[in-house]
Amino acid sequence: MRACIIAVGTEMLTPFRVDTNSLFITERLNEIGVDVRLKLVAGDDVEELMEQFRAALAWADVIAMTGGLGPTEDDITRVAVARVLEAPLELEEAIVDRIRERFMKRGLTMPEINRRQAMVPRGAVVLPNPNGTAPGLWMEHGRTAIVLLPGPPREMKPMFDAVVHHRLAPRAGGAALFRRVLRITGRTESDVDARAQPIYGTWTSQAVPITTTILAVLGQIELHLTARAASRAEADAALDAAVAELGGALGNSIYSVDGRSLETVVGDALRSKAFTIAVAESCTGGLLASRLTDVPGSSAYVDRGVVCYSNRAKVESLGIAEALLAEHGAVSEPVALAMADAIRVQATASVGAGITGIAGPDGGTPQKPVGTVVIAIVTGREARVRTFQFVGAREQVKFQSTQAALNMLRLMLDQ
Amino acid sequence: MRACIIAVGTEMLTPFRVDTNSLFITERLNEIGVDVRLKLVAGDDVEELMEQFRAALAWADVIAMTGGLGPTEDDITRVAVARVLEAPLELEEAIVDRIRERFMKRGLTMPEINRRQAMVPRGAVVLPNPNGTAPGLWMEHGRTAIVLLPGPPREMKPMFDAVVHHRLAPRAGGAALFRRVLRITGRTESDVDARAQPIYGTWTSQAVPITTTILAVLGQIELHLTARAASRAEADAALDAAVAELGGALGNSIYSVDGRSLETVVGDALRSKAFTIAVAESCTGGLLASRLTDVPGSSAYVDRGVVCYSNRAKVESLGIAEALLAEHGAVSEPVALAMADAIRVQATASVGAGITGIAGPDGGTPQKPVGTVVIAIVTGREARVRTFQFVGAREQVKFQSTQAALNMLRLMLDQ
Repeated sequence: MRACIIAVGTEMLTPFRVDTNSLFITERLNEIGVDVRLKLVAGDDVEELMEQFRAALAWADVIAMTGGLGPTEDDITRVAVARVLEAPLELEEAIVDRIRERFMKRGLTMPEINRRQAMVPRGAVVLPNPNGTAPGLWMEHGRTAIVLLPGPPREMKPMFDAVVHHRLAPRAGGAALFRRVLRITGRTESDVDARAQPIYGTWTSQAVPITTTILAVLGQIELHLTARAASRAEADAALDAAVAELGGALGNSIYSVDGRSLETVVGDALRSKAFTIAVAESCTGGLLASRLTDVPGSSAYVDRGVVCYSNRAKVESLGIAEALLAEHGAVSEPVALAMADAIRVQATASVGAGITGIAGPDGGTPQKPVGTVVIAIVTGREARVRTFQFVGAREQVKFQSTQAALNMLRLMLDQ
Repeated sequence: MRACIIAVGTEMLTPFRVDTNSLFITERLNEIGVDVRLKLVAGDDVEELMEQFRAALAWADVIAMTGGLGPTEDDITRVAVARVLEAPLELEEAIVDRIRERFMKRGLTMPEINRRQAMVPRGAVVLPNPNGTAPGLWMEHGRTAIVLLPGPPREMKPMFDAVVHHRLAPRAGGAALFRRVLRITGRTESDVDARAQPIYGTWTSQAVPITTTILAVLGQIELHLTARAASRAEADAALDAAVAELGGALGNSIYSVDGRSLETVVGDALRSKAFTIAVAESCTGGLLASRLTDVPGSSAYVDRGVVCYSNRAKVESLGIAEALLAEHGAVSEPVALAMADAIRVQATASVGAGITGIAGPDGGTPQKPVGTVVIAIVTGREARVRTFQFVGAREQVKFQSTQAALNMLRLMLDQ
């Protein structure tokens, strides 16, 4: 079954508001095997909304609409739907009574305009709203189920949950969608796709079909696998096999198949080895320490960090030799190694990390352009250092640097 | 002029991702008087996208599409648009060369699939993409201007700015929307609205009408003022008066009326006084240092930071007396003050900041529950310390703590 979600409200056509109701609705629809194929945000214009609703009616099995059920003239969802379905709007006195009661409970008189909220297209089922004045509406038109929901999430969510349970799930039946997210770092999107596509390309025609979406975000690639199956057990079997196949092609660049963030994966590795960590950061300005400490319970393994932004701080806080800075420059492999080593020794930690680089926009040179970042990881047994060249604005360079440092940590701890 | 924005990508039809590009695009279109009437999110299905694109073509003066310009088989925007416009896709070797060069700069070979990104519908204008491989495309069809943009915001934004300036603005003309954003911290949303509503409530019926939206985000309230006017000068006059009126009601809790972030406001204050800063963080784990160093040029005033996550680190890195920790506990006003003082002295900086608290989810006690955070700011002349009680998960507590610390810094530096 294919669904269309329509959010109604001119405020969501401004630069300030996004529709997030549709995320909740999508999750619930997917769980019962309904596919969301299109999402719309329309303004408070009856004619325009009628046009969009009519177009959706031509193909969708489910149309979920949020917003535009309030009492003001801007609230046009009831009118638009009733006109397209040619169902006259009729006043339901029972709804008026409920709304009046709601106002009375708060010691208020119901304004006359709220009677609008009691207008119901003939043949529609009224969905009670325990959290607000606007009732929802359920209609069927040919093969299409139509549900009108209020905009405020705390009114919409329980109402939609009830609709899914009582009305949509029995109609939907059959296969539902189950998801798995693979997170990858240290490869480009094209490289990941070149390796993964020959594998996932064959999955759409399996007994349990799996569709794959590749998503590149800063310093990270995600592969979203969606299996359509009659049961979770069936889906899990297919997804486990799929993940194993991708693992063969992408190797240890996959850092998580269970939704864990990179900092959580690193934290889990540190904890399982009973290791502690200390970090010395220059260009990332504390972001590595901050990401490590975003993980609940990280106080068990994060000992300390130093943000040595000035050269003087590198000398004073870490004891980096001025001669080393003068000889190689602050952004150099010897300095990154010295930083990682110094903080590890200072904290008597198992692992030390050092990051030094040029986040930009200023400070670049022809030899060391903006985006040059050197990362060193040191343990008692081993030291690794790498020079990266990142692209992007200051905050992007900072984030990618921490991503690369966490990945170096992960790979070293994985041995 | 009426615009339709289409975001393409099946990942935005999952419960995990929302389209936010359209917010930026809306802002830019509004600035030149173009009204956004409809937003769509479509999946990676050529036939379905063709249908939506064709429907928009029937009414829209501007169609802006984002995403689906990548090199993979899922990237179907070029194909769908070319088919509807009946413009054959042709390979542009110049684009292949640019993409190849981009890969070479990183020491990589261009994968063959990236040639797809060089396919251009006949008659389209290629929009260069300095930040990625996917070029944008500009087309005209009857009265409709069509612009195809890459999905990643850092690629999309500069490209769309150039398109607005060179191609769309000359076509648009007419009354435009002009905006001003007031950023406020240290007050609740209801408090801000109670003070502001009696003022902004009268503005909608002015000669230059101003609508006001209040937006609460973590640790911050924003008032968005939107004036509709024939010229920027007319709008600016009305907005300046509006901002001054709100300033009277909200006082120095307004930290910015020009879009500057709180860390930028603090950075500007430090720079204007030729001050330097050093920070000592426990529960925020480096986030304060990271936010301070997100500002370009912050190396002029950020000297160093210490993340003393363990008690031992507080003693060793900052010289906090063990007796002080034992007597008052790590989360206490004396310890926060000692941290701020120690880092200021160590760095010989003008200002020192100290943050200690319980970010959660564990570590709370009945006396000091999760969310208890103590912040101290110390200069040569003055010391201030405050205990806060924040609500939310670990990352929310961290962020609100840095927000409060930056605000204390701002108010102290403002004197």
